[in-house]
Amino acid sequence: MDAHALTDVTQGGGAPESAAPQPTYLEQLLAAGLLIETGVKGLYGRSAVFEAVADGLNAAITRLGADQQAEVLRFPPAMGQHDFETSEYLKSFPNLAGTIHSFCGDDRGHRRLLARLEDKEDWTDQQEPTGVVLTPAACYPIYPVVAKRGPLPEAGKVVDVLSYCYRHEPSLEPTRMQLFRQREYVCLGSPERIVAFRQLWMERGQALAESLQLPVEVDVANDPFFGRGGKIVADSQRELKLKFELLIPVNDGLGPTACMSFNYHMDHFGALWHIGLADGGTAHTGCVGFGIERLVLALLKHHGLDPARWPQPVRETLGDV
Amino acid sequence: MDAHALTDVTQGGGAPESAAPQPTYLEQLLAAGLLIETGVKGLYGRSAVFEAVADGLNAAITRLGADQQAEVLRFPPAMGQHDFETSEYLKSFPNLAGTIHSFCGDDRGHRRLLARLEDKEDWTDQQEPTGVVLTPAACYPIYPVVAKRGPLPEAGKVVDVLSYCYRHEPSLEPTRMQLFRQREYVCLGSPERIVAFRQLWMERGQALAESLQLPVEVDVANDPFFGRGGKIVADSQRELKLKFELLIPVNDGLGPTACMSFNYHMDHFGALWHIGLADGGTAHTGCVGFGIERLVLALLKHHGLDPARWPQPVRETLGDV
Repeated sequence: MDAHALTDVTQGGGAPESAAPQPTYLEQLLAAGLLIETGVKGLYGRSAVFEAVADGLNAAITRLGADQQAEVLRFPPAMGQHDFETSEYLKSFPNLAGTIHSFCGDDRGHRRLLARLEDKEDWTDQQEPTGVVLTPAACYPIYPVVAKRGPLPEAGKVVDVLSYCYRHEPSLEPTRMQLFRQREYVCLGSPERIVAFRQLWMERGQALAESLQLPVEVDVANDPFFGRGGKIVADSQRELKLKFELLIPVNDGLGPTACMSFNYHMDHFGALWHIGLADGGTAHTGCVGFGIERLVLALLKHHGLDPARWPQPVRETLGDV
Repeated sequence: MDAHALTDVTQGGGAPESAAPQPTYLEQLLAAGLLIETGVKGLYGRSAVFEAVADGLNAAITRLGADQQAEVLRFPPAMGQHDFETSEYLKSFPNLAGTIHSFCGDDRGHRRLLARLEDKEDWTDQQEPTGVVLTPAACYPIYPVVAKRGPLPEAGKVVDVLSYCYRHEPSLEPTRMQLFRQREYVCLGSPERIVAFRQLWMERGQALAESLQLPVEVDVANDPFFGRGGKIVADSQRELKLKFELLIPVNDGLGPTACMSFNYHMDHFGALWHIGLADGGTAHTGCVGFGIERLVLALLKHHGLDPARWPQPVRETLGDV
């Protein structure tokens, strides 16, 4: 695995040429046993220490949202293909989605599969789509669920979700995993409610990052829309200021990493799923998303690989990890 | 969705013909909001109450295993295809595995994909295998990780894992989900160590079920090996008593459901991954697996759909859910 592809080409520039190359952040994480290699880029196991920090973050986010009267919903890391199609994810990010396929053959097909495996040939040609698609973002499964219940309450609604999400973007940046956890609060209601919700969480997100003693900036952003047409959509998203990100430097030699995002979907999901307001209009939606792995990686980067030695106020925010 | 297919055909046999059919257990769980429909059989959201019970169970299992000096490892719900192939899962259960596929085309391919979607045709023909396979059982990712570290310590080793697992077996039995969580303790070491470990956990598993006031029986069992040859393997597994299950009645009109299993793999995984003992021999392995969703469903079935009204000792075992 060519982990050196990630090494900051500028770092150690002044060191003698005979010096061993500085390990990348990913290499440090693997060497410390915080992440565990699986042979696949962007797919790692997590140690007990890594998970304790992740749990501490989730608990801190729960405390921050205690006044939101949020409905807690938890989904497995996949959704039905029909709902996935309705979401229009395939319009914007076809390359990132993951569909689940299974072998549906008989004994004869099985013998063929095993023969191919034995000959080290591709055996996946008999795999058929199952109608289940990996969850691309933690909030996607909730829209059809809320829609089915009829019009929203007068004041709108907040949902608390957490899920492993899948994106097909193999990478050696530890902050770009193929499977990672997103914690979200999702707000459904009037445009005014969503705008106020997003403003509140931009402030809370920054306050959380400050209490974790992480250097942050918040900036307008865009999603990585696919293809040539994607640039136009991305420009429009930026112009309308629909997405802000909280950015933290994590990877050496690369720009800062989005560790939280604050999104206003306007009536995109409300219209697709016919989510109604109490007054009969179409619901607007927005969400705040916390990249759990990215926040853990930011903490490990800025405070060191041993959480027991982190500043006491940071440890307290995380419930004494 | 034909949820009535699950209705026990014998139940309500004496009721007047005009009586409404009794709701199935799945229908009761959905009506109570404990499980949330996604339009796919065996794929459900979970409510806050459901998750609180699941968390309580996991904490109880952690307490039970506190003396095991287990290494906690957590993996995302997928593993690399190479390791998956090495596991020989495809020999035994090709029909249950789920491979992840993605669109790897360009703008032109994307237009074709969207046109098919628009015409309600199959758009998955352009999906290509990503080299990532959903985890079929929580312990599968750990064997290559432990193998890479060299010979086991003299006394062997215990690993604590928890993961969402995928099995392609759409069903209306709520106990047979496509995505569900397995908690496991896995033991690697000498045959004597594994046999003693399994015996210990058969006792502990029964004690846990008793403290949860669940009616249980433990019986020898077999895995659902695929195809015509599968029966021979299953018979051999039973004859050698390699698998025991802790069974609890959950679904009306069906036999009891395996909620824990106690497995002795002999040197199957040790030989596949060259996991060595300290003395140079091949490691044997075994595991105890807890079906988290199945145990929650068993508790809801036997004590009612409102955990606040469960017997106090049961609530205490679960950390006062």
